[in-house]
Amino acid sequence: MNRKIRMGMVGGGPDAFIGPVHRLAAELDGKIELVAGAFARDRERSIAGGARYGIGPERSYASLDAMIAAEASRADGIEMLTIATPNQHHLTAAKAAIAAGLAVMSDKPMTGNLTEAIALAALVRDAGTPFAVSYTYSGYPMVREARARVAAGAIGTVRKVVVEYPQGWLAGPATGKQAAWRMDPAQAGIGGCIADIGVHAFHLAEFVTGLRTGMLLADLGAVVPGRALDDDCTLLLRFQGGARGVLMASQISVGERNGLRIRIYGNKGGLDWRQEDPERLWQHGIDGETRIVYRGDPGLNEASIAATRTPAGHPEGYLEAFANLYRDFATVLRGGSAPLLPGVAEGLRSMALIDTAVAASRDNAGWVELQTEGELS
Amino acid sequence: MNRKIRMGMVGGGPDAFIGPVHRLAAELDGKIELVAGAFARDRERSIAGGARYGIGPERSYASLDAMIAAEASRADGIEMLTIATPNQHHLTAAKAAIAAGLAVMSDKPMTGNLTEAIALAALVRDAGTPFAVSYTYSGYPMVREARARVAAGAIGTVRKVVVEYPQGWLAGPATGKQAAWRMDPAQAGIGGCIADIGVHAFHLAEFVTGLRTGMLLADLGAVVPGRALDDDCTLLLRFQGGARGVLMASQISVGERNGLRIRIYGNKGGLDWRQEDPERLWQHGIDGETRIVYRGDPGLNEASIAATRTPAGHPEGYLEAFANLYRDFATVLRGGSAPLLPGVAEGLRSMALIDTAVAASRDNAGWVELQTEGELS
Amino acid sequence: MNRKIRMGMVGGGPDAFIGPVHRLAAELDGKIELVAGAFARDRERSIAGGARYGIGPERSYASLDAMIAAEASRADGIEMLTIATPNQHHLTAAKAAIAAGLAVMSDKPMTGNLTEAIALAALVRDAGTPFAVSYTYSGYPMVREARARVAAGAIGTVRKVVVEYPQGWLAGPATGKQAAWRMDPAQAGIGGCIADIGVHAFHLAEFVTGLRTGMLLADLGAVVPGRALDDDCTLLLRFQGGARGVLMASQISVGERNGLRIRIYGNKGGLDWRQEDPERLWQHGIDGETRIVYRGDPGLNEASIAATRTPAGHPEGYLEAFANLYRDFATVLRGGSAPLLPGVAEGLRSMALIDTAVAASRDNAGWVELQTEGELS
Amino acid sequence: MNRKIRMGMVGGGPDAFIGPVHRLAAELDGKIELVAGAFARDRERSIAGGARYGIGPERSYASLDAMIAAEASRADGIEMLTIATPNQHHLTAAKAAIAAGLAVMSDKPMTGNLTEAIALAALVRDAGTPFAVSYTYSGYPMVREARARVAAGAIGTVRKVVVEYPQGWLAGPATGKQAAWRMDPAQAGIGGCIADIGVHAFHLAEFVTGLRTGMLLADLGAVVPGRALDDDCTLLLRFQGGARGVLMASQISVGERNGLRIRIYGNKGGLDWRQEDPERLWQHGIDGETRIVYRGDPGLNEASIAATRTPAGHPEGYLEAFANLYRDFATVLRGGSAPLLPGVAEGLRSMALIDTAVAASRDNAGWVELQTEGELS
Repeated sequence: MNRKIRMGMVGGGPDAFIGPVHRLAAELDGKIELVAGAFARDRERSIAGGARYGIGPERSYASLDAMIAAEASRADGIEMLTIATPNQHHLTAAKAAIAAGLAVMSDKPMTGNLTEAIALAALVRDAGTPFAVSYTYSGYPMVREARARVAAGAIGTVRKVVVEYPQGWLAGPATGKQAAWRMDPAQAGIGGCIADIGVHAFHLAEFVTGLRTGMLLADLGAVVPGRALDDDCTLLLRFQGGARGVLMASQISVGERNGLRIRIYGNKGGLDWRQEDPERLWQHGIDGETRIVYRGDPGLNEASIAATRTPAGHPEGYLEAFANLYRDFATVLRGGSAPLLPGVAEGLRSMALIDTAVAASRDNAGWVELQTEGELS
Repeated sequence: MNRKIRMGMVGGGPDAFIGPVHRLAAELDGKIELVAGAFARDRERSIAGGARYGIGPERSYASLDAMIAAEASRADGIEMLTIATPNQHHLTAAKAAIAAGLAVMSDKPMTGNLTEAIALAALVRDAGTPFAVSYTYSGYPMVREARARVAAGAIGTVRKVVVEYPQGWLAGPATGKQAAWRMDPAQAGIGGCIADIGVHAFHLAEFVTGLRTGMLLADLGAVVPGRALDDDCTLLLRFQGGARGVLMASQISVGERNGLRIRIYGNKGGLDWRQEDPERLWQHGIDGETRIVYRGDPGLNEASIAATRTPAGHPEGYLEAFANLYRDFATVLRGGSAPLLPGVAEGLRSMALIDTAVAASRDNAGWVELQTEGELS
Repeated sequence: MNRKIRMGMVGGGPDAFIGPVHRLAAELDGKIELVAGAFARDRERSIAGGARYGIGPERSYASLDAMIAAEASRADGIEMLTIATPNQHHLTAAKAAIAAGLAVMSDKPMTGNLTEAIALAALVRDAGTPFAVSYTYSGYPMVREARARVAAGAIGTVRKVVVEYPQGWLAGPATGKQAAWRMDPAQAGIGGCIADIGVHAFHLAEFVTGLRTGMLLADLGAVVPGRALDDDCTLLLRFQGGARGVLMASQISVGERNGLRIRIYGNKGGLDWRQEDPERLWQHGIDGETRIVYRGDPGLNEASIAATRTPAGHPEGYLEAFANLYRDFATVLRGGSAPLLPGVAEGLRSMALIDTAVAASRDNAGWVELQTEGELS
Repeated sequence: MNRKIRMGMVGGGPDAFIGPVHRLAAELDGKIELVAGAFARDRERSIAGGARYGIGPERSYASLDAMIAAEASRADGIEMLTIATPNQHHLTAAKAAIAAGLAVMSDKPMTGNLTEAIALAALVRDAGTPFAVSYTYSGYPMVREARARVAAGAIGTVRKVVVEYPQGWLAGPATGKQAAWRMDPAQAGIGGCIADIGVHAFHLAEFVTGLRTGMLLADLGAVVPGRALDDDCTLLLRFQGGARGVLMASQISVGERNGLRIRIYGNKGGLDWRQEDPERLWQHGIDGETRIVYRGDPGLNEASIAATRTPAGHPEGYLEAFANLYRDFATVLRGGSAPLLPGVAEGLRSMALIDTAVAASRDNAGWVELQTEGELS
């Protein structure tokens, strides 16, 4: 019962950023263990990737298919697959995992384009596969606290959301492997910045407010000369029910590291959270009172308490947030319920966002509708 | 030569916010002195207003015309007029002052609508009247420092500007005199939030970058039920030359006091300045270096040094910024040059912004052109 | 009744820092006007000093005595004297002013040493002269708010005070006039850093808490080689009633501009205020709640409301704080009461602090008593 | 070669705070695995403790001796022991581990008193046991960066150190297990706040500066009525070579969570780091330049790069810092070198600090010498 869930990974090879993060997050609570991987499509590189994780050559495979086949024949074979490849391989990997009866934790965005996402969503639903998408920032305790407070009416009816995600690391030419694939349509799909970080901002806005976006207006730009995909995006949002939103994502904002921030204004109060100062949530009241709520403070909601590992003042960060998604995922695999975990529905919505925003911006289409999940499937 | 310039005021009566601020700012450097006013249109109230400023009843007039007539006959009569009335009276007051040969410091926005602004601009140009518009925030030393740094190429070519001006004080019903007139089209004109604070953000963006807005897309909302004018605005901007911009102004952002902030990203660096922390300018380099430049630090530009009164670490604020406009104005009246002082051209541009944004948003017009000063006059 | 109080100044010549600040602060509210000065002991330099202030040569005197004599014979002669000289001239200037029936606003510290302070305190009391000492930081609205909250029991019984005042500007050799006199015992007296800024921290601690220091332990150092006076001080304090305190003042803390900060901890809560972020007061409750109280917020105490000129979010700073002392002083001169204005008692206490701390540190005396005002006079 | 080091734990039972933290930290990098424990002295509670960690009853022992005996007979028995008991059990546990040939990671402070520490230091040296003490904060990347910068001369000769560690959680009566044992001399030893957190501040000061404390003056107080041990401490430090220091540690500072902060001033610059904002290091130059250096920025020192797991802007925190100590420890156990890892020398020094400070404060002894390691052994 206490044994660890056995995880495989596809992607996450020797130069990868997100692979090691998935592994640290997955293993943090001692509920999951990375035991095998198809870390790269070259056998030597896959073995080198495995060595980073302490995985021996015998379980460092040269392809996902090879891994699935070999692991299926082991008594201690993998039970779940983490997908950490570039976007355009997500669907293929997910399909193979589903066919093999493996649960799936997919990096975001869910697939390379909307058509693939619709297909994948259908597959997942039909197969009943446990499936999560790594919208990491929703794992932060104070993000979950914010969601709980909005839901409890702490700021009244939401009127306005400003969510922004500025980065500066692609302000220069996109050199290096991390940069290169993100700006290559063959690997990243149709969206650049919007697909890489815009979807995080979008998910965060819907996650915290509980609202669904009805309409949007998109202005995507490829600022750095010669770039084929967008590196700077502004979206105006209109939520169902009428609340107004602004979403800004940018990778040419020199000096910004990872400046995800969300501000939500209601008719009774406001909330403000910043990813680079994640332990604190600012809460404003219509009466003029401003409070700073710290992770670990007395009086917080169960949702944030459950996502907490150390006392107030002992900074938790990105890994712990990510680990909360994996902890939720383990809960699901053990038969429990994890209502905050982003799944195929959230993945599908984000793909619709990318598709809609890219088309609307390209066509200078003004306000356009964002299809609902019902309309999409 | 050292004697003080004699200033009259129209508006700024017993309940006014901005009248006393104009007076403090005007007098701070000992170059200008408020000596008379038509503080309200009711004689009793004008006298009460005058008493706030230490002006006796004999120079607290019941109308601007009365003030102009009486002061013209005094050897020590007023030489300049500060206009601190609601927007729809600005043109009338300015006309009377120009006709009387008085220099004019007008509160922003310059007039009640664009047609008036065009007329006023022509009058000012024909008469050669010294004329300033109180875009106060351009008086902050570190704003002027930012402008100088951009001009000197510190961040390279500007690619992106994010300027935001959130306030929360109109999130509830607009009670109180200050709130009421701003949401009354008869007094405020066609713009609410866009005219009250959006124009500050707009001026700041053009002031710091030296760029001119070519196109805009406007999304103005009247969020609080029953409101006739906008209280929340988002504008997408495209500057001449192609730089991208986002302008957000809001008066329903609960918990925000006066959160004007500007971020400018170029191909070599970035700048970040916040009005509520006005002594510091954040400067980022493409090489990853982040510096905080403090007002009063060694090595600053002449433009900010000249706008400084106390050493670093002795906080200067809003009044000093405002006083810098008046100091510039006094320089002009003494025959000097003050290239940073906002004048009729800036006033006219802002009126075009209001007019264009309100129409474009109402008509859901998508991207529209912002007329240049040449096209306007 | 509304006419301005006529102020003279001694000191504040062409290169002075604090003279222009006194003038701006004095005149900010239109209740006081600088009309004459003995700005330097050289006539040419005094005239040059006067020109900075718009004072003509005829009232720019070469000595205080000359000013007093000449002004006494004018119908519009000065009514008060601001003393802005180096410390060792304070007593002489104050004596002359008292003898001439002038009210006195003295820069801090009150005199060059404790003996002088005792003598001056007696003179002031005997003459009944209105006398203030410029402990500027007590003029900040949020400092007065903090005091009011402590007095009202918001944090319960005070247990601990940490007051610090780090600066870095004397970390290098003391070049320049401002630096040189502060490190010259002949001009500054027996204390360097302790007398220049330590006294501000000391006054702030007693002002906000309402407590009186009973014992202290002093560790003063002259860190920069060759320096005759202290440039870095730590004091342990024990307040009457038993509360503990730490006072740090330093002028060799590279990178610190003017980092005065006070934290007060009681058995029910805590307060935290920083001079470089003066508009905000942090308030902590024993229940874990942290609030940020902004100047201008609803629900503040009368003491801070009265010290406020602009709405929340329009930064006020050092000049406004200083002007609050002058406004209090004008109130006293007009026959009113200003209980928060630092006077001769506070000046005397600070001189006792300097004297006691310097001796105790030199003698490595451990804990020593700080004499009360009663014991001193 | 890649197999995990097998770790046992003593202490860390069902209600413990630090036990789970040790486990998360130890396992974060996949180099160490907790496999057994004597989590409590009651068998039922030890089993309950083990269940928290996924350790079965068969390896959840009722005593350290039982664990050592049983594990020694297993092929997969423990190789190292983490000591997570209250202070007074540290020596006994360490002795048993050393005798059994286990490497030791001890929670701080190293022992219950100095005599024990001297004995333990001798034992460790004689046995050659790998031995570390969990001065967690020295594991933060930007702390290691600060140390490297000081060593490289970035701020010149160190003149002044201010290290403070305010907490508020013991401002009320010490209820709860965590609070109770810390204020019980039978469990905590002779020091309260000084032993619990003062030693962290002390270690940090010596770690970052590379200096050794020569003399100290201590003022320890038991502020909350009825308390037998100190809950608020101020120490003046004089480092060998003459640099001045102030160390403040407090557990009655209401509103402070875990406010460890260090500021270091040299003759060429200054550094400032705060544990609750651990990703940023402020660096000041004597020329007036202020820079913020972020973890993950280009151009950092190898020491901080090696202690980093995620890119800049993805907040790392307390667990990652702690894990860096365990990673260093694993390096040592694998035969490598980890010069930054706090060991028995640092543990001994801290015990001397507690002993000296408690005695000096009790006796009001003024400045006293802090014995060197040579003098101690």
